[in-house]
Order: sequence, then structure tokens, then C-alpha cells
Amino acid sequence: MSNPFKPTGLRRIFLAALMAAPVGCFAQDDLVWNALDPDNTVYLELQEGTVVILLNPVFAPKTVEHFKQLIKDKFYLGTSFYRVIDGFVAQAGDGSDIDGTQADKPLKAEFEIDWPLEPEDEEEASDWTPLSWTPVQSNDMFAAYTGFIDGFPAARDEEKAGKVWLTHCPGTVAMARNDDPDSGSTDFYIVIGQAPRYLDRNLTVFGRVVWGMDVVQRIKRGPALKNGIIEDDLERSWIKQVRLASSLEQAQRLDIYIADTNSDGFVKMLDGRRNRNQKFFHHTPPRVLDVCQVPIPARLEKPWVPR
Amino acid sequence: MSNPFKPTGLRRIFLAALMAAPVGCFAQDDLVWNALDPDNTVYLELQEGTVVILLNPVFAPKTVEHFKQLIKDKFYLGTSFYRVIDGFVAQAGDGSDIDGTQADKPLKAEFEIDWPLEPEDEEEASDWTPLSWTPVQSNDMFAAYTGFIDGFPAARDEEKAGKVWLTHCPGTVAMARNDDPDSGSTDFYIVIGQAPRYLDRNLTVFGRVVWGMDVVQRIKRGPALKNGIIEDDLERSWIKQVRLASSLEQAQRLDIYIADTNSDGFVKMLDGRRNRNQKFFHHTPPRVLDVCQVPIPARLEKPWVPR
Repeated sequence: MSNPFKPTGLRRIFLAALMAAPVGCFAQDDLVWNALDPDNTVYLELQEGTVVILLNPVFAPKTVEHFKQLIKDKFYLGTSFYRVIDGFVAQAGDGSDIDGTQADKPLKAEFEIDWPLEPEDEEEASDWTPLSWTPVQSNDMFAAYTGFIDGFPAARDEEKAGKVWLTHCPGTVAMARNDDPDSGSTDFYIVIGQAPRYLDRNLTVFGRVVWGMDVVQRIKRGPALKNGIIEDDLERSWIKQVRLASSLEQAQRLDIYIADTNSDGFVKMLDGRRNRNQKFFHHTPPRVLDVCQVPIPARLEKPWVPR
Repeated sequence: MSNPFKPTGLRRIFLAALMAAPVGCFAQDDLVWNALDPDNTVYLELQEGTVVILLNPVFAPKTVEHFKQLIKDKFYLGTSFYRVIDGFVAQAGDGSDIDGTQADKPLKAEFEIDWPLEPEDEEEASDWTPLSWTPVQSNDMFAAYTGFIDGFPAARDEEKAGKVWLTHCPGTVAMARNDDPDSGSTDFYIVIGQAPRYLDRNLTVFGRVVWGMDVVQRIKRGPALKNGIIEDDLERSWIKQVRLASSLEQAQRLDIYIADTNSDGFVKMLDGRRNRNQKFFHHTPPRVLDVCQVPIPARLEKPWVPR
């Protein structure tokens, strides 16, 4: 038998395959894949590459509507990521980068919604939108319950009713604001570090990066001790283009699929991550799950063809 | 009075200053800054830039010794980040990248240590190394207690005795291994995403990135659905050089200082992050702290001068 420590290409794969266990084993076949809704899919093009954001009109209808209007108005062209704190957020879209055409009316806060209880009569039923809920964890330090709602990490204060909100996880997209809860306008941020969950219910989360977080991670950082502000315009990452997928021809869209978080395959994946009984684990980890540490599988079927 | 929504340069700063609140306000004056020990400071030079890692010989004495020997032997030159999963880890240092000279003896696991209780007699006192402990949180879902030990995030299973270990937070550096706990050798990883705390006590954490996490975040990712393995060598981020600060002349070292996590100023900063009573917060966040979401302030006094 050959020496297991003799360096070979195989050994690399071997090591890697074993280290795979902690990531969470799941058979791809088990997952149900959903195409992205082109009318709620945003292509944010930076010099670093393309970032794909899925908007969430269920939790932030007015903000999503406003954001789409800003995209249509080409508001974000010529704005930049002017405040970027490594391990925290990348913030962009302030109108003062450009002169004039700022669609700058303040937005009503959309921090959380009521859990949509089953309607009691026909009148209630007429504007009832049911929500799915794939539970992840009780009492995760920041919320009574965490889970997924149609591909978005979320949290609740009650198990059957109460309030529900989208959580601040890496990749979360939300509106910045001043002290006034209703003061958001155009400035938005993407979470790029350990989940700042203390911001939950305090800012309007209106989307999530579903593809291109590696691109987001290459956005130029500002000095942490100066609040991340990049004073020199030339040092910043600039927004080249922002487009809604539905504004493009079918052939120009990115064919991205994300795992259905309501599917049995996804639930099985959650169980695998919660119950780590592989031989690899010397100490069995606590049987808990951090909703922000669950990767939502995504795949790109068709490579991006630059125009 | 001017319209507060009129775009101006000042407004940008205003917005940003207010958004600063969630980061945690602290007066820099309050912090005590420690220089890095050059004999435990590693400069990892990639094509993306320089990453500075502080080693921890208190928690992983043998692994640190071995890692320093590998650096001295120039083992890592010509190795690459061959497994990089966005939001999880960047893994490098497998000997099969190169032929021959692999210093590849397996390492004993150094997953945790006993809390060093005060010595009861002179004999015990002779090899007693006391540890500082700056508490952060009780029952954070993954551990009974979390805190900082001399600039490293850590956790314990008992308040006064028991075991103590370094936690897996963004920036944590640890040895990869096979199923055998004592099988680590040269392959190491850097945590680049939401803290995979389930790996705590299961892998030997031996250092932490104290400068250049933005560089680490630019390391080329592999395909998530293929376990992050980058098959094409040309696509990978390669290690250009690894050096111990003490092997360089004083003038060539980076003058980096990190906040003393035992100092009153740091404790005050923790309190500020735990008790967010600023006007900004519409919902007062739960008075809890995620040890991996606490930034440890760092500053560079002297810019890096390439040789």
C-alpha cells in the first residue's frame, strides 16, 4: 500500500472530499430548483463583475417598486460604493455622487410584516397571500424563531402568528436611512460580513444577492477606523449598469436557479447540517443551525455572454 | 434652511455618519493598542496582496511550531488556494501542488486546552501560564460562554474551569485534516464567511488574520457545487511568499497594532455594541453579542513598502 502522506493529486481530492463533510452533504437530485422571477431580478454590474440580486416584493413592496423605478430612471449609473467596511457592509447609491436627477423621496419603513393568518371569511381571503415557512432554529439569540421563506432567511417573534422579517445575513440587501425610520431613499447596502443581526427590524431588507457574492467581496474597502468612507472617488468601485432581468431579451438573461427552500431536499440538507454525525467530528457539534450560515444552493445554467 | 434631500457632498457624510451608529461607536483614545509579536506574525503574500496572520502558540503550540518550520523551509511557495468556497473557507497549502520536499508529518490535534487554574503550589506555578478572559456572551447557541483571550475570539464550556478553545470566526486560520483528528499536516484554511462554529473543537485553530481580510476576500472562488475545488491551476490564487515578520529587518515589517481586548476601552466598546440605545434603533435589538461579529480594531502605522 502506498504511503498515505506521499503527495499526489489524488490525495488532494481525498483531503478535500473529507473536508467536504462539514459543508453539509446533500444530493443535488433531492433539491428542487426554481428559476428567478425576471421581474424581480436585478443585474448590478460593477467593474469587478456582475452581481445578481433577487428582490422581495412580499416583504418590501414599496421599496422594491421604488428601487425598480430608480433602475428604470438609470439613477444608479455614476454612483459608487462610497462606504465599505470589511466584515460589515458595502454601501452605495447616494445621489450626491451625481448632480441633479435624484429620485429622492423618502420611503416608508418596511421593517417587518404581520404573519398572514388564514382568512376567516371570503373578504379576508381576497387579499390573503399565504407564506411558506421552513423552520431552522428556535431561540437563536436574536429571534424566537428563524427559518426560510421562499429562498430568504427570515425570523419571527411567534410560532403561529406575530411579526416576521427578513434577517441581516451575508448577501442581504437593504436600504440605508437616517434616524427617522421613514427616511430611506436611494442609498442601499449589501451585507459582506458576519451577520449584523442587531439591524434586523430596523432597516428595510428588500433583496438578497443570489449570485456573485464573490464579486461583492472584491468591492474596494474603505478605512475601518474612518467608518469605511472612501474619500477619493478614484479609489471606489463604481456602478456601471443596473438592469432588471425582464428589461433584457431572454437570450441576454442569466439562467440562474436557486434551491427551493420549501422542498424536501432542502429540509434534508438542513437536517444534515444540524445533525453532524459523520466520523469526521471528534466533538459532536451542538445540534443547532445559524440561519445565516446555511448556504442556499444556486446554479448558473448558461454562462454570461457580455454584449 | 436648505432641503435635507437636496444632494450635496455633505449629505453623503451625514447619512454615513448616522449609519455609523450600528457599527458601534467608540472613542479611539480609550483603546490600548498592542504591537504584533514579530515572531508570531506571518506575511502571506498572494497575487491579490499581503495578508497578515497572527499565530497563537498558547492554544496550538505544536501546530504553530510546525507552521513556522514550513515557512522557514519555504514549503508554501508554489502552493495555491485550491479549494475556495464563497461564504465558507479558502483552503491552501497542499503539498501535491509541488513535487518532493513535503514536510508532511501528521500533527497532533490541538482543538482545545484546559483552563489554566491558579496553581496550588510552587511546582504547579512553575509551568502556569495565566489566561485573560474578556467575556462577551453566555449561551450563544454554540457555547456556554464566549469571550476574547488576548485578541482572539474564544469559547468555554465552564465559567471558572473546564475547556477553552478558539472559535471559528471570519479570519480564523486553522489546519485541515482527514477523519483522524491527528492527521493535519500542511493544508490550512482561512474562514471567509459566516462563522462555521460547528467546526469549533474539531479542528486546530492556530491563528487569525489581523490585517488584509479584504485581500483574502479577493481570493478566487471555486464552484460551490463542486466543493470549491478549482481544477484549473491557472484559475487559482497562488502563494508568492510566506514570511515570518521576525525574519525581516525592522524597516521591512508592517507596523500593525491591534486593540487590546483586555483593556477598558475594548470592554466599553463591547458594552456599546450590546446596548444599542441610540435614537437610530426603532426596535431595540436584543442585548446580546455574537463574538464573531465584534470587530477587533486594527491599524497600520506605516504603509507597506514593496521591496
